[in-house]
Amino acid sequence: MEFTFLGTSAGTPTRSRNVTGLALCRSGPKPWYLIDCGEGTQHQLMRTRYSVMQLRAIFITHIHGDHIFGLPGLLTSASMLGRTEPLDIIAPVQVQRFIHAVIDNSDSSLSYPLNFINSEAPEFYWQDDQFRVTNVALSHRVPCRAFVFTEINLERKLRQDKLLEDGVMAGPNWGDLQKGKDVLLADGRLLKSDDYTHIPRTARKLIVGGDNDTPELLRDACPGTHVLIHEATYTQDVADRVGPWPQHSSAQQVARFAQSVKLPNLVLTHFSSRYQSYPGGTPNINQLAAEALQHYKGHLFLANDFDTYQLTTDLQLHRLTDR
Amino acid sequence: MEFTFLGTSAGTPTRSRNVTGLALCRSGPKPWYLIDCGEGTQHQLMRTRYSVMQLRAIFITHIHGDHIFGLPGLLTSASMLGRTEPLDIIAPVQVQRFIHAVIDNSDSSLSYPLNFINSEAPEFYWQDDQFRVTNVALSHRVPCRAFVFTEINLERKLRQDKLLEDGVMAGPNWGDLQKGKDVLLADGRLLKSDDYTHIPRTARKLIVGGDNDTPELLRDACPGTHVLIHEATYTQDVADRVGPWPQHSSAQQVARFAQSVKLPNLVLTHFSSRYQSYPGGTPNINQLAAEALQHYKGHLFLANDFDTYQLTTDLQLHRLTDR
Repeated sequence: MEFTFLGTSAGTPTRSRNVTGLALCRSGPKPWYLIDCGEGTQHQLMRTRYSVMQLRAIFITHIHGDHIFGLPGLLTSASMLGRTEPLDIIAPVQVQRFIHAVIDNSDSSLSYPLNFINSEAPEFYWQDDQFRVTNVALSHRVPCRAFVFTEINLERKLRQDKLLEDGVMAGPNWGDLQKGKDVLLADGRLLKSDDYTHIPRTARKLIVGGDNDTPELLRDACPGTHVLIHEATYTQDVADRVGPWPQHSSAQQVARFAQSVKLPNLVLTHFSSRYQSYPGGTPNINQLAAEALQHYKGHLFLANDFDTYQLTTDLQLHRLTDR
Repeated sequence: MEFTFLGTSAGTPTRSRNVTGLALCRSGPKPWYLIDCGEGTQHQLMRTRYSVMQLRAIFITHIHGDHIFGLPGLLTSASMLGRTEPLDIIAPVQVQRFIHAVIDNSDSSLSYPLNFINSEAPEFYWQDDQFRVTNVALSHRVPCRAFVFTEINLERKLRQDKLLEDGVMAGPNWGDLQKGKDVLLADGRLLKSDDYTHIPRTARKLIVGGDNDTPELLRDACPGTHVLIHEATYTQDVADRVGPWPQHSSAQQVARFAQSVKLPNLVLTHFSSRYQSYPGGTPNINQLAAEALQHYKGHLFLANDFDTYQLTTDLQLHRLTDR
């Protein structure tokens, strides 16, 4: 399971950080999933291995411009490239109105269908053959959701001893059982895949937060979660100066929460453009890391644009690229 | 008078060319004018000396996405920076609907007023203290306009001989006359600025075309024009293969037209993403230049992103930066 940051700046882009976007895939970039789509997301994608042709679904946490203004260009570019596959857009209903108004007023048309799915619907979930996705309501100036990705259809391992013990010889039946299919034998016996296979590892679970001033809201979703990606727009001193209006989290707030639920891996992102990334720049992005490390003892990462992370099947998170 | 290309690719961005945008100023970047605003224009501006705080007006040639999808981000970023100055948007009426729909569906608000001015209105013109801007209807899949920028309020030079001859001594009156103001003397005489000053140079005139398959439509606007910036999406062979549907110009078409009206400077832009800019890339951007040079004997330029051109008061066009 891999994810690549396409943008890590809050509100406005900077010279080194675009506004929010995250590419996620389970095994290789076909298919992949996009979470949020700030302006310039299609430009960032040109520098990654992800193509809009293989994009299966877009998840939008909330309607603010720095999370959605890249949608018109990305969707119409996919059309110019000749995409025909339907595309799911999981988002608040205003996003559907936004897209329709943009298409109507720019003489645009799409060569493929969009399926809009209301992310704010009660009992929301979305599922394909790779992930089951649920969400959690956050606290921000507009309705906002964190998306919880849990992998499904994990590879099964045959219980060969039991198969042989029950007189089922190696052959195509073994393959079907391993794929999760139940098998009816010529002698009338029904072999259940669940009885003759087991899943030798834990399903990986990742939470991608949206803008949020109350990390505590994620408490119930955290058990069994291996990675939390959460905004940390400010250090605590700046958050105190700015006041509560923007409804963002400080590094300290997120770190304390992650520690309280014993989260193994925490990736902070969505940094205020005031924090400089170059050595010696003030205020510096490292202040966010230093503040978080005072309160969080797990594996802490600060996201940079184009950083790629791999969550391996043994549940270790590795940063593959670094600036 | 200077202009800087913010994007030179048609339809979709490439790794080296963004979609359309052009920054124009008369003397220094305060104030300046933006012609078209493809997605990522605000990102490109971060690499120039132009700031959205000093932007006076945005001119939109037509409603296609690669010319307008950068507006939402640019306008809301100006607001986040605290802009209060009103901003003129000269555009087809759909652009106003587009902006309103975007603002309504993204919880956005602007800290400054937008003045929408319909570029498709009969007898259109727009004017401030630096430029008078008219436009010309082009031929494209949707209504599209070229904008004609002519500088006004040129520096006057005093006719000192005539002033002294008429007994008007040096003093504050001379200053007023030079600024173009008429002066009433104590003895009752009215001195007209036009009688006692002259403008020692020609007003510079620039045409910025939009998407257009019929350069001939610009014929009446060309006399006295020093620079034409025009799309040349394809070489003629590609244009023939693609067919007439996209309603774009070939390099040959634009070059022939520019030659027929004896235009001194021609800058081609808005290149199909198929043309490669790196040495040896096929098909190559140089094929567009080679084709144009067969038909045009004036000064030919092919635009690159971030190229800055200066049109001096002696009517010479210089490319200041080069890749």
